Amino acid sequence: MSSATSRAFGQTAPGRPLEALALPDAGPLGDGEVEIAVDHCSVCHSDVHLLDGDWGDVARPLVPGHEIVGRVVRAGASANISEGAVVGLGWQAGACGACAACRSEREHLCTGGKVRTCTTAASTGPTASRGAATRWGGFAPRVRADARFCFELPDGLDPTTAAPLLCAGLTVFSPLERFGVRGGARVGVVGVGGLGHLAVRFASALGASVIAFDPDTSKRRLALALGAGELADARGPLPRGVVDLLLVTTHAPLDWNAWMGVLDLEGTLCLVGVPGVPLTLSADPLLDEQKRITGSVVGSTKTMRRMLAFAAERRIAPIVERTPLSSADSVNDAVARVREGRARMRVVLDRAPR
Amino acid sequence: MSSATSRAFGQTAPGRPLEALALPDAGPLGDGEVEIAVDHCSVCHSDVHLLDGDWGDVARPLVPGHEIVGRVVRAGASANISEGAVVGLGWQAGACGACAACRSEREHLCTGGKVRTCTTAASTGPTASRGAATRWGGFAPRVRADARFCFELPDGLDPTTAAPLLCAGLTVFSPLERFGVRGGARVGVVGVGGLGHLAVRFASALGASVIAFDPDTSKRRLALALGAGELADARGPLPRGVVDLLLVTTHAPLDWNAWMGVLDLEGTLCLVGVPGVPLTLSADPLLDEQKRITGSVVGSTKTMRRMLAFAAERRIAPIVERTPLSSADSVNDAVARVREGRARMRVVLDRAPR
Repeated sequence: MSSATSRAFGQTAPGRPLEALALPDAGPLGDGEVEIAVDHCSVCHSDVHLLDGDWGDVARPLVPGHEIVGRVVRAGASANISEGAVVGLGWQAGACGACAACRSEREHLCTGGKVRTCTTAASTGPTASRGAATRWGGFAPRVRADARFCFELPDGLDPTTAAPLLCAGLTVFSPLERFGVRGGARVGVVGVGGLGHLAVRFASALGASVIAFDPDTSKRRLALALGAGELADARGPLPRGVVDLLLVTTHAPLDWNAWMGVLDLEGTLCLVGVPGVPLTLSADPLLDEQKRITGSVVGSTKTMRRMLAFAAERRIAPIVERTPLSSADSVNDAVARVREGRARMRVVLDRAPR
Repeated sequence: MSSATSRAFGQTAPGRPLEALALPDAGPLGDGEVEIAVDHCSVCHSDVHLLDGDWGDVARPLVPGHEIVGRVVRAGASANISEGAVVGLGWQAGACGACAACRSEREHLCTGGKVRTCTTAASTGPTASRGAATRWGGFAPRVRADARFCFELPDGLDPTTAAPLLCAGLTVFSPLERFGVRGGARVGVVGVGGLGHLAVRFASALGASVIAFDPDTSKRRLALALGAGELADARGPLPRGVVDLLLVTTHAPLDWNAWMGVLDLEGTLCLVGVPGVPLTLSADPLLDEQKRITGSVVGSTKTMRRMLAFAAERRIAPIVERTPLSSADSVNDAVARVREGRARMRVVLDRAPR
């Protein structure tokens, strides 16, 4: 990383703005690793959670960014990706390969040493990680990852807008696949934002009839354009018994009993946003209506490949604002837009070619 | 019901003991209905909840009892059960037949007019019902039900001990079937009581390896005899990540986060007991480990038939105490034993032949 290190942006202490940093040398490249020159990196709400300390302590400097599109500039001996390949990298940069989850193709649930792309120390929250101390996210000019977690972009995906697929896209596609969404399914999506707009698009492309929910009803036109049949006011009154799967993409705590009512019998409420506080809900809809509540975190490498192929085939591109990854000001502004819910729908930072 | 009515036992006001009652005439038998002379009726914890007002107001007199074995003494013209047949009747005595749930063979989730065997007024709790005002449970000498909810007992089931299968047995078998429990499955059962002892027995007979949990570790020998591989102390410390399905048969509120930890990745915690208060739990295991929480209520008529056939084939008989259904004292004592958790494992009331 030598010459480019001062073009990284990171946070040296909780609550501080991001600043240009000189990063230490990353050391020798691992045998199965690749080094990626970052071309595009979008900002996910998880980056904001990490920066704001919502998920406990992480090592600093913290260089965020885990929705990355770039080019492989070095590949370890056993990495099966060629130098020059245009690849995407998401929230996960490695897994143990040996635990029961890894052996059953659920690397995203690895219990033997999950590696996150942009956080470097064990935390108390959902980011618990055992990444190497020299692991930086996509706000650095170069990132490293286990080659198994780098995905060549299929033809048909525009690299300049694809970055949000690597985390947001996977996060919403995985539960749609897990719960068998296809023609005839009825899917609700709570929140039309970075995750939600892709959830509406994917669910609709899979053949589901989709109801989008957002407190900002000015998003109706957008939601319909993405494939929703309607946009309902998330502030209520909520329709009852209308969907089989409800994806909650927001991170604010909700009135869970009211939202369980939106499900039809035996329906599933699936969290993909991370509420910071415990859930409180009545047992009645679980028992009398056999509803269930669950959650989902990113997805497996197989699901990632299927998601990227489906997005390419169906021309599903994230809606993004693009801004240069050129100064601390531009980076801090992008983060603030995400923190305040002003991004429409995702902010992609573009790094100038070197 | 004329001559036998004074041999019914019911409650005339919340909190009062049961007493011998003269019930009004039940009127003409419906076309699809049968009238059953009760031979055996066991006491379920739901009867106690109804009597104690835990589930809100119900019509009184309340004549409880919904785990019934008896003989068909009259059958309506279109009822496809013959007079003289030995049948079982559980918690559900009718359904609308027309709603989406009924049309998809999920009559237990009927939304168009579910009829309960022993409660007669809409309540605010899980007993919400639109039963006819003349519907009495199995503490009456005769009960009526839609013939579709009366099940001929297969050969191999002993009528004197089978009654608990009709509610408790179905309640635990249905989720085992829904979650595909078979050889290789790992099932936990919380509470070795009326429901739990049957859950251990069924899960084990289906080929699962079973861990039973109970605060009373003197039940270890019993649990092992029922097929559990071990009995763990429910007071903790709880083993972590050891089962894929955890059936919670108790009705006391638990430390849900601790119990979610007993599940392995993507495992399911399924309530079959009814906790009286809302659940509070962390979202972390739902997200990071993709676990889910749900519940189950009795089961469909198809599941009932499969459960009875399986019990007959595998000689699965409830463990019961038997006592005569002969006086208010005997009935009140049986209810008290269930209320106080002293029944081992279920109390069956036997009505003397008339």
